[in-house]
Amino acid sequence: MSRFLTKTCPRLILAGCLPAPAARSARTYASTASPISQFDWEDPLLSKNLLTGEEVAISETAERYCQEQMLPRVLRAYRDEHYDPKILQEMGELGLLGATIKGYGCAGVSSVAGGLITRAVERVDSGYRSGMSVQSSLVMGGIDDFGSAELKERYLPEMAKGTLLGAFGLTEPNHGSDPGSMETTARPHPTKNGYYLLSGSKTWITNSPIADVLLVWAKLQETGKIRGFVVDKRDAPAGTLETPAIKNKNGLRASITGMIHLADCPVPKENMFPHVEGLRGPFTCLNSARYGIAFGTMGALEDCITRARTYALERKQFKGNPIAKYQLVQKKLADAVTDAAYGVLAAIQVGRLKDEGRATPEMISMIKRQNCDRALYNARVLQEIFGGNAVSDEYGIGRHVANLFVTQTYEGQSDIHSLILGRAITGLQAFV
Amino acid sequence: MSRFLTKTCPRLILAGCLPAPAARSARTYASTASPISQFDWEDPLLSKNLLTGEEVAISETAERYCQEQMLPRVLRAYRDEHYDPKILQEMGELGLLGATIKGYGCAGVSSVAGGLITRAVERVDSGYRSGMSVQSSLVMGGIDDFGSAELKERYLPEMAKGTLLGAFGLTEPNHGSDPGSMETTARPHPTKNGYYLLSGSKTWITNSPIADVLLVWAKLQETGKIRGFVVDKRDAPAGTLETPAIKNKNGLRASITGMIHLADCPVPKENMFPHVEGLRGPFTCLNSARYGIAFGTMGALEDCITRARTYALERKQFKGNPIAKYQLVQKKLADAVTDAAYGVLAAIQVGRLKDEGRATPEMISMIKRQNCDRALYNARVLQEIFGGNAVSDEYGIGRHVANLFVTQTYEGQSDIHSLILGRAITGLQAFV
Amino acid sequence: MSRFLTKTCPRLILAGCLPAPAARSARTYASTASPISQFDWEDPLLSKNLLTGEEVAISETAERYCQEQMLPRVLRAYRDEHYDPKILQEMGELGLLGATIKGYGCAGVSSVAGGLITRAVERVDSGYRSGMSVQSSLVMGGIDDFGSAELKERYLPEMAKGTLLGAFGLTEPNHGSDPGSMETTARPHPTKNGYYLLSGSKTWITNSPIADVLLVWAKLQETGKIRGFVVDKRDAPAGTLETPAIKNKNGLRASITGMIHLADCPVPKENMFPHVEGLRGPFTCLNSARYGIAFGTMGALEDCITRARTYALERKQFKGNPIAKYQLVQKKLADAVTDAAYGVLAAIQVGRLKDEGRATPEMISMIKRQNCDRALYNARVLQEIFGGNAVSDEYGIGRHVANLFVTQTYEGQSDIHSLILGRAITGLQAFV
Amino acid sequence: MSRFLTKTCPRLILAGCLPAPAARSARTYASTASPISQFDWEDPLLSKNLLTGEEVAISETAERYCQEQMLPRVLRAYRDEHYDPKILQEMGELGLLGATIKGYGCAGVSSVAGGLITRAVERVDSGYRSGMSVQSSLVMGGIDDFGSAELKERYLPEMAKGTLLGAFGLTEPNHGSDPGSMETTARPHPTKNGYYLLSGSKTWITNSPIADVLLVWAKLQETGKIRGFVVDKRDAPAGTLETPAIKNKNGLRASITGMIHLADCPVPKENMFPHVEGLRGPFTCLNSARYGIAFGTMGALEDCITRARTYALERKQFKGNPIAKYQLVQKKLADAVTDAAYGVLAAIQVGRLKDEGRATPEMISMIKRQNCDRALYNARVLQEIFGGNAVSDEYGIGRHVANLFVTQTYEGQSDIHSLILGRAITGLQAFV
Repeated sequence: MSRFLTKTCPRLILAGCLPAPAARSARTYASTASPISQFDWEDPLLSKNLLTGEEVAISETAERYCQEQMLPRVLRAYRDEHYDPKILQEMGELGLLGATIKGYGCAGVSSVAGGLITRAVERVDSGYRSGMSVQSSLVMGGIDDFGSAELKERYLPEMAKGTLLGAFGLTEPNHGSDPGSMETTARPHPTKNGYYLLSGSKTWITNSPIADVLLVWAKLQETGKIRGFVVDKRDAPAGTLETPAIKNKNGLRASITGMIHLADCPVPKENMFPHVEGLRGPFTCLNSARYGIAFGTMGALEDCITRARTYALERKQFKGNPIAKYQLVQKKLADAVTDAAYGVLAAIQVGRLKDEGRATPEMISMIKRQNCDRALYNARVLQEIFGGNAVSDEYGIGRHVANLFVTQTYEGQSDIHSLILGRAITGLQAFV
Repeated sequence: MSRFLTKTCPRLILAGCLPAPAARSARTYASTASPISQFDWEDPLLSKNLLTGEEVAISETAERYCQEQMLPRVLRAYRDEHYDPKILQEMGELGLLGATIKGYGCAGVSSVAGGLITRAVERVDSGYRSGMSVQSSLVMGGIDDFGSAELKERYLPEMAKGTLLGAFGLTEPNHGSDPGSMETTARPHPTKNGYYLLSGSKTWITNSPIADVLLVWAKLQETGKIRGFVVDKRDAPAGTLETPAIKNKNGLRASITGMIHLADCPVPKENMFPHVEGLRGPFTCLNSARYGIAFGTMGALEDCITRARTYALERKQFKGNPIAKYQLVQKKLADAVTDAAYGVLAAIQVGRLKDEGRATPEMISMIKRQNCDRALYNARVLQEIFGGNAVSDEYGIGRHVANLFVTQTYEGQSDIHSLILGRAITGLQAFV
Repeated sequence: MSRFLTKTCPRLILAGCLPAPAARSARTYASTASPISQFDWEDPLLSKNLLTGEEVAISETAERYCQEQMLPRVLRAYRDEHYDPKILQEMGELGLLGATIKGYGCAGVSSVAGGLITRAVERVDSGYRSGMSVQSSLVMGGIDDFGSAELKERYLPEMAKGTLLGAFGLTEPNHGSDPGSMETTARPHPTKNGYYLLSGSKTWITNSPIADVLLVWAKLQETGKIRGFVVDKRDAPAGTLETPAIKNKNGLRASITGMIHLADCPVPKENMFPHVEGLRGPFTCLNSARYGIAFGTMGALEDCITRARTYALERKQFKGNPIAKYQLVQKKLADAVTDAAYGVLAAIQVGRLKDEGRATPEMISMIKRQNCDRALYNARVLQEIFGGNAVSDEYGIGRHVANLFVTQTYEGQSDIHSLILGRAITGLQAFV
Repeated sequence: MSRFLTKTCPRLILAGCLPAPAARSARTYASTASPISQFDWEDPLLSKNLLTGEEVAISETAERYCQEQMLPRVLRAYRDEHYDPKILQEMGELGLLGATIKGYGCAGVSSVAGGLITRAVERVDSGYRSGMSVQSSLVMGGIDDFGSAELKERYLPEMAKGTLLGAFGLTEPNHGSDPGSMETTARPHPTKNGYYLLSGSKTWITNSPIADVLLVWAKLQETGKIRGFVVDKRDAPAGTLETPAIKNKNGLRASITGMIHLADCPVPKENMFPHVEGLRGPFTCLNSARYGIAFGTMGALEDCITRARTYALERKQFKGNPIAKYQLVQKKLADAVTDAAYGVLAAIQVGRLKDEGRATPEMISMIKRQNCDRALYNARVLQEIFGGNAVSDEYGIGRHVANLFVTQTYEGQSDIHSLILGRAITGLQAFV
């Protein structure tokens, strides 16, 4: 614990300056150990028992920040479809960005600790977690895994602080589930040596309108192979790069999403990832982000449980009974609590394997698919408990439902992960 | 057919003035009979075979209006959470309001015809259908069933035209599923003879902010029994009646919803329904509205099918195959098409029984519950077909999903209908 | 009604000789009209309203026979995996075999009436209905549709009486869902003019061990096209035809199932269906049988509802409450009753279209798939109501559950029908 | 590992004498570590990583015995509804009975090791696991937890060897889910000092017909409190104790089930558990057995997966494709594999907590409910892969499906566990 809180990441000391949680927080932290033999509906299978002291501390710091600083902003942000980039800066100050990366001012924590951070953020909103995932897993993780030493030095420290924002450009308008068919290309600059020209369009790119740096995947004209390029917006000549926002989304409205249009945008050769070719590059980044989603969505589900339970205890119908007393309501709660507990265990297990180098992409497909699916399913069922009141956005659960549907479709739509698993189980591919 | 189009409701002649459907419509009408032995995915069990010529004509008129006049407005209306009251006027001009009522300028069509109208409207948007249901079934229907001759003459003709709008005040903030516990009261005016003073609050009242006339249910102080009052906003003294809008809804954003606050609002005794006491009054109105919901939601589901099918045929992934070719996609379509076909048959059957006086409230609970549940379930599954693109509101399916969730919770939340059915099946009540 | 009961099929007069139902029957017939506005859990959407008087009479005759004569035998038959061929004779005496066929001693009733018979039989046991479906729809129906006048005259009258039994040989060990790949062949007899020699194996053939006549589908060597042959067991030389029983089944144990092994079995050319080639022949037969399954499984589901409801009313747990009073139990009943009601309406609708020549195979795929799936699903859920007692075969519901699983897999496994529907909806086939 | 294999339980040496698994086993043991980064569909989330070497060894010993010795007998046993008591003796010889008990010749292994044994046994058949659970958890566990030193010495060593068999009498014909209402009584013997007379009936008692010792729960007449009695069949006077078998079960046919009828059966006071009163006694035993069920059912599910996968790879339909190549088949496999992986992780977690004294009964309700429900659900879905062939008992999956339904209903029917969880989550009971 000490390393995280004091040495690697002194900024976390700030956490201590926050008001005591009891005073302000919307959520009571399970910071004191449950007495033995007491069932805790917030951690029904005592997953906390599997965490190190450091991990518990990180989780508590993240939860406190999220409940106290982020939660009060989300209702309005979602209504207005507005994303405040300061949130990433605040996260940076707490050491929450790129937290699993070693060096470059990053905290260097375990994968499980990284997952606990995503859970804390997604307990507030999946959109906020998406913004963080892009910064931490997709862009910083990609640069850390595949970038040259120079790229790392140039970008990671500022990104860790949240003062430089990133976006990840893989998906194209006509190629969602099948990125191998991408059409974006990089060709040698006809006149300017040491430069590529990138052309093509990317869509559904979280953070693209506010990002300073875009990690863009494109096919190198010379080889036809997919390569990764760090496109620095600040260096792009006018007219070669646009990142318009996409508005009027059904979900993840508290995050910002856009496109990337490249029209012969020049990028220096040094900004190309040197050693990774083909889909291995983007898939490695996605793998890491998917792990965060698998853990994060459990936070959203847990928040739905808390909200539904509170509502059910307070709402009285038929002879003054709280509706929490009705069998049909209790079954909904029992199902959701169970799925959340199982999902957290699976996420912890895969995190441990990840740090041991034993996690396979299929494992991450499995937990990404299952946790998103079950979070969404249960959130929807819990929403029924609110009856007609669910239509008011004040109760928050409709926002989670809308968000979780999106998490089920991005970074591998659920059916695609089914087929990835099916292929791993049978040895036969069924995509076509 | 002739009666509907020419005698009872001459305004329907207007329908003939609309441009030919082929020229403008977003939907191809199945107006020419399918050739024998050809499966029609839009009417898989040939429910049209069960309709009269008049009903087919009414359905086509309504569909044409909805696709041509309403559909182009809905995207913006939903985004902006704005309801245009002119829509009810247009419906009135076509004879679509209170269409099953006989006399008073109403069309006097069959229950099935009424259901076909709700299907046409809800194919566009459940919010538009909600606005119409309130006007037609809850308020006009209530006045027609229980109002004095004077009330009928005074209100029905204008309401049929859509120039006078109504709202239905039953649900209270603390009494949703259990209206029998309502707190709104009517007491004799202490000084003004022949008047009651109404006090209390109603919530989630569709149309209340724009309504001219409110059908309010309140407990008569003298008897403790629930009675119905037609509260004419135009006669309410300042400060006794407010109908503020509720904003920031998760669904039904193209309809307008509000509260009703009554503070010693004086209502003349003649505006009380003379002969109905207790829950029979509001439940009769609800019964009629629920029938419309049961039929209407099938329209929303059918629109989801159409949209998902089109998308699946156009969207290509993996070696250029349209995703409609994939088994997992086809199963989703097959399930939805089946549920829509079954739901329409059930709605027609109950409509016929209704007109024969053989429909029981439990039948309507059954089809309201089942059709809302299956419409919602399938809409959600079909939404998966759109993958990440589903998050864009341009595809429309997310709007249906959000709307259909609300239809599942209003006018009897699904679980409440389960218990109504359970009671009818077992003879035992399980509400408490 | 009169035609059925007196003219076409005088044997039905026997029905009048049965003891009065009130005295012995396990089921109360809804023969007297329900009073208006009374919900009838046994016919919740009043499907009876859609039947002719003749159809009601046929249904009652069939129900009475099934409840009084078949029901008492089924428990032992299922335990012992024993099928009593006398049952088909009894059905024949009542005019229940090949009932929709006109002439040849058959009753010539409507498709809906035929469906009502399968519902009555399957209310007792899906195995008994299977035995009847093979005789009536697959074999008699096949001969009636495609056989020469001589074949009809020779076989149909005796089959209608149940004194001559049939089996239908289409499925092969390696070709279940894809009969077009069948390996059974018919080649011209090398020496005996006017004869074919049939060779190959068929499996999962209901009734094959007890059948006198086998309708076998084989590829004609000369053309490679599938043709139908009426193989008369009585004429097969020793060693050329075997029909061993398959024992130790998980379901349908009250029916008898076997294989057909043909080793150069000689069949006269006159026994080949003259004008039908390819899969149209067997698929037409299957279509008719599938219609019977769609209607029949609703009977099995209805019996599960009756049994579960009775058990729930009689079983008391927790302070002496009948478990029927619990919400979780009522929901199970409400769901099942709803699906049964919807399924019956769909079956009636398709029956009417069938008689009008407007039913397509996809419609039958739809109702076969949906009704089998929902019958199975709900039967399983209802079985939960019995708790630990469900394991006893005395309660009957476990038998229905096991049977209904088989109905979901035969005559088109559920997924195959999904793909048939998917093809019809999208115009794209996804089988391979 | 050494302690288990050599010191505590020398009989396990026998395991070494069994033929090498490769030669005969129906299952390949995952005894050699998977290479890193290789997805293993038999252990998708690498739960083995959480086991000690000893636990792995125990699991392998148990799996080997079960696959080699038990599996070949089960098909016939199930068909004939015959249980061979020698199986318990063989288990005893291997040290598998009461394995978590310390002393008395028991192996004293961890709860997880105990769970791995149940998984190995239930991979073959839930009935065999039931027979073992009764012996190990319910009776031996009960005596170990609550019996006097004399009772332990007298019974545990022989029971550990499997030479003395036990049964557990709690459930009564009229009191399944609510044992607190039991009617069996113990009254002081009117003439014989130091004896109680037990009267009452117990039903659905696994092993009762073959048991030597019955652990019977009865209400003490003097206090009205429930107490536990070890009823030794060998001491019961003629006519006071009968344990007839219940035949014709739908599931668990490879286990033996019966009743216990007590008619003033004398039991010495020393055979009453001295210090435990009320439902705490039986619920503690059930808790332990339920843990075994939660882990065991995962074995049954895993066997269904293996069987379905093998079938899908071997079965070819449509252009010679193995059906494992179809999307609808792959999705079924992916779902089942995921649920099995999650369920195993949860079972391991609760086992660890159990050994730390931190497992609550609600945790065990949670994993018992979820693992039984998911095992059953997935087994049924996997069964669909077999199409019509599923009806043959040779494929084994139908047996698992029938068994798993029973596991869902016994030792707490699924809905009862939902309400136990609901109570723990909300603080409100909803049983009545």
